[in-house]
Amino acid sequence: MAVTIKDIAEKVGVSVTTISRVLNNRGYISDNLKKRVQDAMEEMNYQPNEIARSLSRKKSNIIGLIIPDVSHPFFAELTKNIEYYAYSHGYKILLCNSLLNKRKEKEYFDLLKASRVDGIILGSHTMGVEEYRSIKLPIVTIDRQITDSIPCISSDNYEGGKLATKVLIDKKCRKIAYISGNLQLNLLATKRHDAFLEQVKANGVEYVVKQTHVNGFNLEDYRKLVHALFKEHPDVDGVFASSDIIAMEVVRECHRLGKSIPDQVRVVGYDGIEQGYFQNCEITTIEQPIKDMGELAVQYLIQQIAGEAPPMETILPIKLLKRGTA
Amino acid sequence: MAVTIKDIAEKVGVSVTTISRVLNNRGYISDNLKKRVQDAMEEMNYQPNEIARSLSRKKSNIIGLIIPDVSHPFFAELTKNIEYYAYSHGYKILLCNSLLNKRKEKEYFDLLKASRVDGIILGSHTMGVEEYRSIKLPIVTIDRQITDSIPCISSDNYEGGKLATKVLIDKKCRKIAYISGNLQLNLLATKRHDAFLEQVKANGVEYVVKQTHVNGFNLEDYRKLVHALFKEHPDVDGVFASSDIIAMEVVRECHRLGKSIPDQVRVVGYDGIEQGYFQNCEITTIEQPIKDMGELAVQYLIQQIAGEAPPMETILPIKLLKRGTA
Repeated sequence: MAVTIKDIAEKVGVSVTTISRVLNNRGYISDNLKKRVQDAMEEMNYQPNEIARSLSRKKSNIIGLIIPDVSHPFFAELTKNIEYYAYSHGYKILLCNSLLNKRKEKEYFDLLKASRVDGIILGSHTMGVEEYRSIKLPIVTIDRQITDSIPCISSDNYEGGKLATKVLIDKKCRKIAYISGNLQLNLLATKRHDAFLEQVKANGVEYVVKQTHVNGFNLEDYRKLVHALFKEHPDVDGVFASSDIIAMEVVRECHRLGKSIPDQVRVVGYDGIEQGYFQNCEITTIEQPIKDMGELAVQYLIQQIAGEAPPMETILPIKLLKRGTA
Repeated sequence: MAVTIKDIAEKVGVSVTTISRVLNNRGYISDNLKKRVQDAMEEMNYQPNEIARSLSRKKSNIIGLIIPDVSHPFFAELTKNIEYYAYSHGYKILLCNSLLNKRKEKEYFDLLKASRVDGIILGSHTMGVEEYRSIKLPIVTIDRQITDSIPCISSDNYEGGKLATKVLIDKKCRKIAYISGNLQLNLLATKRHDAFLEQVKANGVEYVVKQTHVNGFNLEDYRKLVHALFKEHPDVDGVFASSDIIAMEVVRECHRLGKSIPDQVRVVGYDGIEQGYFQNCEITTIEQPIKDMGELAVQYLIQQIAGEAPPMETILPIKLLKRGTA
C-alpha cells in the first residue's frame, strides 16, 4: 500500500501541516526538524518530489487549449469535442487562439503556467522545440510531434494524402495542384504533401505546389492563393486542397472562372468538416476522425495528470468520402 | 483621496490582516474588536462591502464564456473575436458549450463561480431569470435580455427580419417560409420572426413558419426541418432562414429536389458568417456585426469588473448583403 504523508507525520511526531511546510519550504522550519523529516522519508522510501508537487500544486481542473483559430471549422469542431470530453471528466477548457503568432503563443504558455492549468492540449505550432521542453506541465499535441516524450495525436496524414492524390490520378487528371498552408511549420500535415509528391512522380503526372506564407491561415490568404493558382496555371485539371475550406475556395474560384466541376476541374479536400457536406456542390474529401482526436487528446492528458503514461504516438485512420467534386 | 484599508487598520490600532479577517469574517475575532472596526469604518465613511469584496476575491483575469456550441459558425466567429479582445486586455477565456442543456448550463455557472472567474459573457439561454438574478458576478449577455440590470448586446434583429422579408416580397415571392431555431427560447432573435410576420401580413403574402424543437441546434435538426418544409409545402418560393447554415441547408435541399435558385426558390440567410461567402452559390444574407458584438461584450464586462456601469441595452446595426440566392 502506498505510504501517505500522514504516515511520515506520525513517524516524526508532528502534524501533516508541518510536513507539508517542510516539503514546500514554507514558513520557519528548524534544521533539526528538516533533518528528521528527510530521514523518515528516506527510511520509508518516499517519493518526496511527488508529494511536494501534489501538495504545493492545487489542482485547478482547467485544461489549456492552444489552437491557431477557433473560427476555422476543423478547430471549431475539434474544440467542441475537446470541451465535451473534458467536461464529462470534470475539466474546463481555457481557450487560446494563437493566430499562428509566436509571441502570442509564448505569452499564452506563460499565462497558462501562472493560472496553474493542469495540462495543455496543443494544436498550434509556432514555438521552438526547446521552449516546449522547458514546460513542466503535462502536454498532448495534435498534428505536431515535438519530441518523442510528448504524446502526439494525429490522423493518418500520409495515407490521406495518398488516397486523395490517387483519386485525381485515377480520374485521369493531367496536371494536379497541391494547395496548403505553409509547409515549413513542421506539422504532420506535411505528410500529405510527401504522399502527394510520391504519387504524382511515380505516375509521371505534371504537378504544381502552392502554399501560404508562414502566418497565412485565414480565408483571405487562401483566396489569393487559389486565385494565383488558376492565373498562373490555367491548365490545372485536378486540385488536392489540404483543407475543406481551401477546397471550397477552389470550387468558388472555378465557378467564377466558368470551369465546371468535376468535368473540367476535379477537387479533393481534407478534414471532413460538417459544412463541407453543406455545399450545393458537396466536396469529395478525406475525413479525419475529429471526434476521436478530441476524445483521445483529453484522455491522454488526464492520464498524464494522474501520473500515468499514455502512448506517445497515436495515428488514427482516415476515410475517403467520395462525393461530387472529383 | 480614497481611504484605504490601511487607514482603518491604523485608526483601530491593529494589522491590515486583522481588518481583512473582520471584513471577511474569517478566523476568531472578538465582538469588541468587530465593533471597533465597524465604528471606525462608519466614522471614516468607508464602503466596507467593496473593500471586503476586493480583498476576499482574488482577481483571476478569467472570463467565462457560455455559448450553445462553438462549432456553430456564428458562435465560432464570435468566440474568436471575444478571445481576441479579452486577450488584448489581459483576460483569458474559459469556454463552456452549453449545448442548450439546462443542467449543463447550471453546472457551468456553479463551476465558474467556484473557479472565481471575474465575469461571464452569456450567449446561451436555457436557465430561468431567477437563476441569473442569484449570480453575483458581472455578466454581459448576447442576444438575450434577462433583466434590465444586466447589459445586453445584440444586433438589430427587428430591422434585419424586416429587410430580409422585404427582399423576398419585392422579388414577388408568393409563399414565403420562415425557418429558425425554437421561438420559445425567448431570444432577441425572435424579433426577426415578429418582423417577418408583420411584413407578410401587411403585404397579404401567404407564409409558413418552421422551428426546431427546444433543444434543436445541430445540422441534423435543421436538415430534417428543411426536408419537411418542402415535403409539406412544395409551393414555397421564398425562404427566410434565421441563420446562414440553415440557409445553406435550404440551398442544398433545393439542389437535391431540382429546384433552381433563385429562379424557383429565393433564399435569404442571417448572420453573414465567413463560410456563407464560400458557397458555389453565395447566400444573400443579413450580416450581423460579429466583430463589434465580441468587442463590446468584452468591453462592457471589463467595465463592470472595474465597478463602472456600461449601457444596459446596445443594439448594433445590421446590413443586407445582396448576393446570389434572392
